[in-house]
Amino acid sequence: MSVLHRRTLLQAMALAGVGTALKPLALLASATPSVRPMPTGKLADWFILHNDRPWALETRRAAYGIAPITPQSAFFVRNNLPTPPESIIANRDGWRFEVSGVARPGSLTLAELKALPTRVVASVLQCSGNGRAFFPHRPSGSPWSLGAAGCALWTGVRVADVLEHFGGALEEAQYLTATGAEDLPEGVDADQVVVERSIPLDKGMDDCLLAWEMNGEPLPLVHGGPLRLIVPGYYGVNNVKWVRRLAPTAAESGAKIQVSGYRVREVGESGGPQHPSMWRMNVKSWLNGPGGDGGPVVAGKAMLYGVAFSGERGVSRVEVSADEGQTWREADFVGPDLGPNAWRSFVLPVELAAGEYRFVSRATDRQGDTQPADATPNHRGYGHNGWRDAALTVNVVNTLPAAAEPEPGESVHQNAVATPTAAVDTPLSPLAREGRAVYLDRAQPACGACHTLADAGSAGVTGPNLDVLKPGADRVRLAVEQGVGAMPAFDALLTETEIEALAAYVAEATR
Amino acid sequence: MSVLHRRTLLQAMALAGVGTALKPLALLASATPSVRPMPTGKLADWFILHNDRPWALETRRAAYGIAPITPQSAFFVRNNLPTPPESIIANRDGWRFEVSGVARPGSLTLAELKALPTRVVASVLQCSGNGRAFFPHRPSGSPWSLGAAGCALWTGVRVADVLEHFGGALEEAQYLTATGAEDLPEGVDADQVVVERSIPLDKGMDDCLLAWEMNGEPLPLVHGGPLRLIVPGYYGVNNVKWVRRLAPTAAESGAKIQVSGYRVREVGESGGPQHPSMWRMNVKSWLNGPGGDGGPVVAGKAMLYGVAFSGERGVSRVEVSADEGQTWREADFVGPDLGPNAWRSFVLPVELAAGEYRFVSRATDRQGDTQPADATPNHRGYGHNGWRDAALTVNVVNTLPAAAEPEPGESVHQNAVATPTAAVDTPLSPLAREGRAVYLDRAQPACGACHTLADAGSAGVTGPNLDVLKPGADRVRLAVEQGVGAMPAFDALLTETEIEALAAYVAEATR
Repeated sequence: MSVLHRRTLLQAMALAGVGTALKPLALLASATPSVRPMPTGKLADWFILHNDRPWALETRRAAYGIAPITPQSAFFVRNNLPTPPESIIANRDGWRFEVSGVARPGSLTLAELKALPTRVVASVLQCSGNGRAFFPHRPSGSPWSLGAAGCALWTGVRVADVLEHFGGALEEAQYLTATGAEDLPEGVDADQVVVERSIPLDKGMDDCLLAWEMNGEPLPLVHGGPLRLIVPGYYGVNNVKWVRRLAPTAAESGAKIQVSGYRVREVGESGGPQHPSMWRMNVKSWLNGPGGDGGPVVAGKAMLYGVAFSGERGVSRVEVSADEGQTWREADFVGPDLGPNAWRSFVLPVELAAGEYRFVSRATDRQGDTQPADATPNHRGYGHNGWRDAALTVNVVNTLPAAAEPEPGESVHQNAVATPTAAVDTPLSPLAREGRAVYLDRAQPACGACHTLADAGSAGVTGPNLDVLKPGADRVRLAVEQGVGAMPAFDALLTETEIEALAAYVAEATR
Repeated sequence: MSVLHRRTLLQAMALAGVGTALKPLALLASATPSVRPMPTGKLADWFILHNDRPWALETRRAAYGIAPITPQSAFFVRNNLPTPPESIIANRDGWRFEVSGVARPGSLTLAELKALPTRVVASVLQCSGNGRAFFPHRPSGSPWSLGAAGCALWTGVRVADVLEHFGGALEEAQYLTATGAEDLPEGVDADQVVVERSIPLDKGMDDCLLAWEMNGEPLPLVHGGPLRLIVPGYYGVNNVKWVRRLAPTAAESGAKIQVSGYRVREVGESGGPQHPSMWRMNVKSWLNGPGGDGGPVVAGKAMLYGVAFSGERGVSRVEVSADEGQTWREADFVGPDLGPNAWRSFVLPVELAAGEYRFVSRATDRQGDTQPADATPNHRGYGHNGWRDAALTVNVVNTLPAAAEPEPGESVHQNAVATPTAAVDTPLSPLAREGRAVYLDRAQPACGACHTLADAGSAGVTGPNLDVLKPGADRVRLAVEQGVGAMPAFDALLTETEIEALAAYVAEATR
């Protein structure tokens, strides 16, 4: 393989750019008070922590294997609201969900659901914001790079069979709407925060599942156990967790997460029904190794490997380039093909001399769509699939340094509970002191109702833990003015000066 | 489905017979001193503990899911010798193994191996003794019922590609011989205990892998990580763990585990090269639910589910009977077909009135082999595939008892460390007191060199922990006279009286 593009490690690191967004958990766990122990079954070493309240855990590049299944221990987590309590999986079979919008509305327990025809389907779950960190306009939301995605086998019952059980969908139905069972924060309009999503009913009838098993295990709580919706080939948000209601509906849900959230629009524009919803996942691929952990790789033969997928379509070809796309070589698929919504693993043998490489991969799906070099910027940083940003930087050396570090993920389960550390007392600026009052009193609902912030003594668990997020003032201002995800916009409720002060406060208090 | 065969729960339990062999771990963990914490990633609730030194963990029937992959958390464990220390996975890529019997003998590190062509293959791992508990002659060895089997995706490099890398196998080679890296106990002839197995070289060249990944995770230590041999469709023992040497050889290995162990022969006969080796797995299936945990199932519709496989062949049909095989109904396969060495999940809808049912399943493979009603008895209880013994007993009730117990596997990771409890001082019989002297001194190598036995103050870790095993006197006598697995026969070394005394001692001391 000819290598036209090479640079020093330092240059590569500087160019990678997203470095600061990727906080290794181990680091955070020791530096930050109040990080919760990992969810059951998760191996801390395999994640980048974006937030712990609610959970936002990104799979590290080096944690992906070559088999086309992502194990529970390394599967990314993104919860919109706090995870429901463990008690909801104490008696899984007793879980009950309602079905309306059908000839004979009613409810089923999971035990009853299990008596309907069983299916097992492989599908990629991917957060709409996967790749957000690569967009230069720095959109709000967790700065995922590549690891907000995984592929699993899901066991469940087709939505079509569930609706048939209740006499079928009413005639006027155009959408399938699913509602999650998360506890909603008090003092906030339910429609602002409820996780309720709609997809076209045809899609729902075609291949969607209500699933209770993930990779042969009872669906873990943090992934929506006892029961979640699986929408094969659609972005994660549509795969509603902890389903308590399923309904064919004439219109899309009126919840904010549907009406204005997860809509693709120009940078700076507010989302609305006129914008496309984050439904089918576009064609995408990336390389995971060797050297995905940033460690050196010894010169000689090497096998590049990665994953490729396209919602509902499957992929037909993956190519790899070592010269930023000037020349490409076709990679080989390995392992069983688990279906059009799963990802496929690919490999490509290369021969590497010492130096610095940037490898990129480009997938083409079965309908002929090929990944673009660069993703189209959009306000919230959704649907990134540009091949350039996903480059794998490999540092090839002639000999390894004497004492090689153990690989990540090698240690035993490290469900690290952070040791609370005393906050350093940095005096707040006058503006920030004013912002503290806004945080504590003037904003309604109060900031602390949803956020944890040690300086303010608040311990809300609905929105991001600000002590972990450590947002800059600009990010706070943007979120407060426009809202982010479940967070409402406060632009009509606070003055510009108040917002300015609040932004200064949160930034300074978490510095 | 007509139900001709029904009986009360008590009758069913009495008839099941193997009940006493299946010790739930939770029970053992509290009743027995010195049970070790579970291996990393294993969920204690999902296993029946047969032994902890070396590990013998059987997957509970209710722990199997419907997807055709068995997760790490529930995958059975059977180690012939003590698990090597964690240190061997501290630097996985640095693991080195030798290759001889080739044109250019040499060695490779795992990092170097990873540069050869990558493959991903699904294959069932099953212990040769799976189903041993069902044989009426009570063969020596762990009394596995159904759960010494699992199906996984293995990532590795073909043995054929490894041998080619070293110039190819020498002409005289007929077998592929792999050697494990377990520490061998001192004072015992290495050939007596070393885990070294041979398979036909053609098989080795055809589809065997040296694998470092299991279901997308780095191969867990207890499953042979960093590197094991995968022999698709062959019984577990051939899939040598912690491979330190691979060699095409003119003859089969001279290790006891190959020469006389894992040989199918008549009950009472000693094993030898004239008997068939435990290579290809025969056709087999069983049902796992509903009600696989023994709990009641509510009357009405239900979906039976289970797994079916046949080494190298795949299965073409599974039938289910509720009347001990008088009538059969064909089940449906569900989920992706992962290949001829994987198992397939099957389901069958039934309608159940209250009562007691015994369901059996019968698979037919793609070469037309069908499971027999009863397995052929053989000395060590290998290769059980009779459908009758594998019956799933389901207790169907009209309403569930008020306070349903949580399902197994629901609790958070329970890597229970047993609390050492004071041994109850039961006086030994005069014969047993004599046997104690045999245990401590007269047997050579000394019993305690390999076995843990609190009463004798011995803490060997090579053979079964006798405090956990609690073998009856007959079982001890048989093992001492004939040897079991890695244990040599002592019939030439001890007198009949000494063996009798030793048997009494071990039985009484662990009662």
